[in-house]
Amino acid sequence: MRPVCVLGLGLIGGSLLRAASAAGRQVWGAADGPDARAARDAGYQVADDVDGALRDAARLDALVVLAVPLPAVNDVLARVAALAPDCRLSDVVSVKVPVAEAVRRIVPGARYVGGHPMAGVAASGWDAGSAALFQDAAWVTTVDEPTDLSVWRDVTGLALDTGASVVPATASEHDDAVARISHLPHVLAAVLASVGADGGPLAMSLAAGSFADGTRVAGTRPELTTAMCEGNREPLLSAVDDALGRLGAARGSLASTGSLGVTFRSGHQGRTGLDGARGAQCAKVSVNLDAPDVLEGLHRIGLQGGRIVGLDEHTALGELP
Amino acid sequence: MRPVCVLGLGLIGGSLLRAASAAGRQVWGAADGPDARAARDAGYQVADDVDGALRDAARLDALVVLAVPLPAVNDVLARVAALAPDCRLSDVVSVKVPVAEAVRRIVPGARYVGGHPMAGVAASGWDAGSAALFQDAAWVTTVDEPTDLSVWRDVTGLALDTGASVVPATASEHDDAVARISHLPHVLAAVLASVGADGGPLAMSLAAGSFADGTRVAGTRPELTTAMCEGNREPLLSAVDDALGRLGAARGSLASTGSLGVTFRSGHQGRTGLDGARGAQCAKVSVNLDAPDVLEGLHRIGLQGGRIVGLDEHTALGELP
Repeated sequence: MRPVCVLGLGLIGGSLLRAASAAGRQVWGAADGPDARAARDAGYQVADDVDGALRDAARLDALVVLAVPLPAVNDVLARVAALAPDCRLSDVVSVKVPVAEAVRRIVPGARYVGGHPMAGVAASGWDAGSAALFQDAAWVTTVDEPTDLSVWRDVTGLALDTGASVVPATASEHDDAVARISHLPHVLAAVLASVGADGGPLAMSLAAGSFADGTRVAGTRPELTTAMCEGNREPLLSAVDDALGRLGAARGSLASTGSLGVTFRSGHQGRTGLDGARGAQCAKVSVNLDAPDVLEGLHRIGLQGGRIVGLDEHTALGELP
Repeated sequence: MRPVCVLGLGLIGGSLLRAASAAGRQVWGAADGPDARAARDAGYQVADDVDGALRDAARLDALVVLAVPLPAVNDVLARVAALAPDCRLSDVVSVKVPVAEAVRRIVPGARYVGGHPMAGVAASGWDAGSAALFQDAAWVTTVDEPTDLSVWRDVTGLALDTGASVVPATASEHDDAVARISHLPHVLAAVLASVGADGGPLAMSLAAGSFADGTRVAGTRPELTTAMCEGNREPLLSAVDDALGRLGAARGSLASTGSLGVTFRSGHQGRTGLDGARGAQCAKVSVNLDAPDVLEGLHRIGLQGGRIVGLDEHTALGELP
């Protein structure tokens, strides 16, 4: 199993360090301040600084995983360029196109495959993490052309080791999808929380399940939500425009004919589709990793809502809903 | 304790029949079809028809509670006008201004005080109900001028008997508040579910907590949601306009400066206010029910986010956050 070097030991990086270690991998990390101390106190191997961690990674041909917030990516990549310029490189940042562009610009020789485990952001820091955070989560791995398949196998194998299943997607498809199912929900939760609060104490005292559910993620620290959503600007603008269009259509229909039937039937269908996808019987598929069109085969599984659940020397095993 | 006659034995009416009976009250109901049979089979007193139930109510000066969907209210009120035209009357319908207007038009002699227990709508019918449905729920009772205080006491006493606490509000304030904290959440959940589903199978397979929470109520039967929201047209239009304004402002800020800070800080503040109101230490207050400005005193408690939690012969006991 390939050694792993995790740069950043917050919620996600810290959980990855624990999960990779629990899976029996050689793994070490680097971070600033309290996260590094807490990880070291818990018995994990933590380098004195990023440079030291990267020197070890270069020597051992380890997989380096960036686990810092988007605004810190460029600085860390500059150290990668200095100390491990052709390393096997992945990340767990919540957007993929901006990270891929930064890698191309700053560390063009790195063998990079993007990653994103779909695990929560409500808490943060080493103390909020656990080895079980990725259990049953979806972990996106990018399959843009060109992709070094050996590194894709490294990233996928690591994700599977943590208990996640893997969704192959291009960086751009990933960013469009998370704008709809992660970033837009945060924007709408914030809007709903504000409109509700504008109703004053009476409205707040009547708020029950629908309002509590619809505003839950507005309880996340706004700095985290802001950084996450601002980092996916163009895809999020497009998702917000879709929401504005549908909300405006509902408004127009309610004002003119008094009807909200189209809005609620469409919403019910969308939600039922989500529940259906979760409960679906899966068909098993396999992708020959030695085939010339392997990336296309992997990509097709992700586009169909499927996941990679196993990996052996020549084959990726997938499930399709 | 005043006898109670419940017209309609679905989720809310059926739960009220059970809860009033469990509190030791004389209570009977009337309903069509399977709900009536199920209630009778469970040992509750169910009249053969609405007319019979209303004749008993007139004879015993009972509190009559309308527990039918808004579209059925007019027909039931016509029977009330025929058989118990000056009865003590309340309801548990999800909007208050339209019901109050229908009562004024169809049964002008009824001594009416509106009510609305804030309990869930995801399931429906007698079988979905329980005596515990209203435990700790907020139950709005209307305090518009003129209000017959004796009937207000009947309604409030019944609500307290079911384990709810009572929020005094005018019909119009109620409708504005529920537009923000109940009906708008349903509209936004439907919009989010549709925009997410438009992202296709890949987006659905990546959807996690924020999307699942934000779309939960879109799983409600769309006929129920549609009827509930369409019945509160003008207040909901105003709440949707507020949401469109805030979402449009977020869109503009993201497109121009790239910032979502204002949106997320405001949303976080709103959500924190909700959590704070729930955890707040309460101050005890009491309202003298014999005072000339009693309605004003009750109204003030509701407007401040407070609740009535007890009632004796001369005093209503309240809690303020």
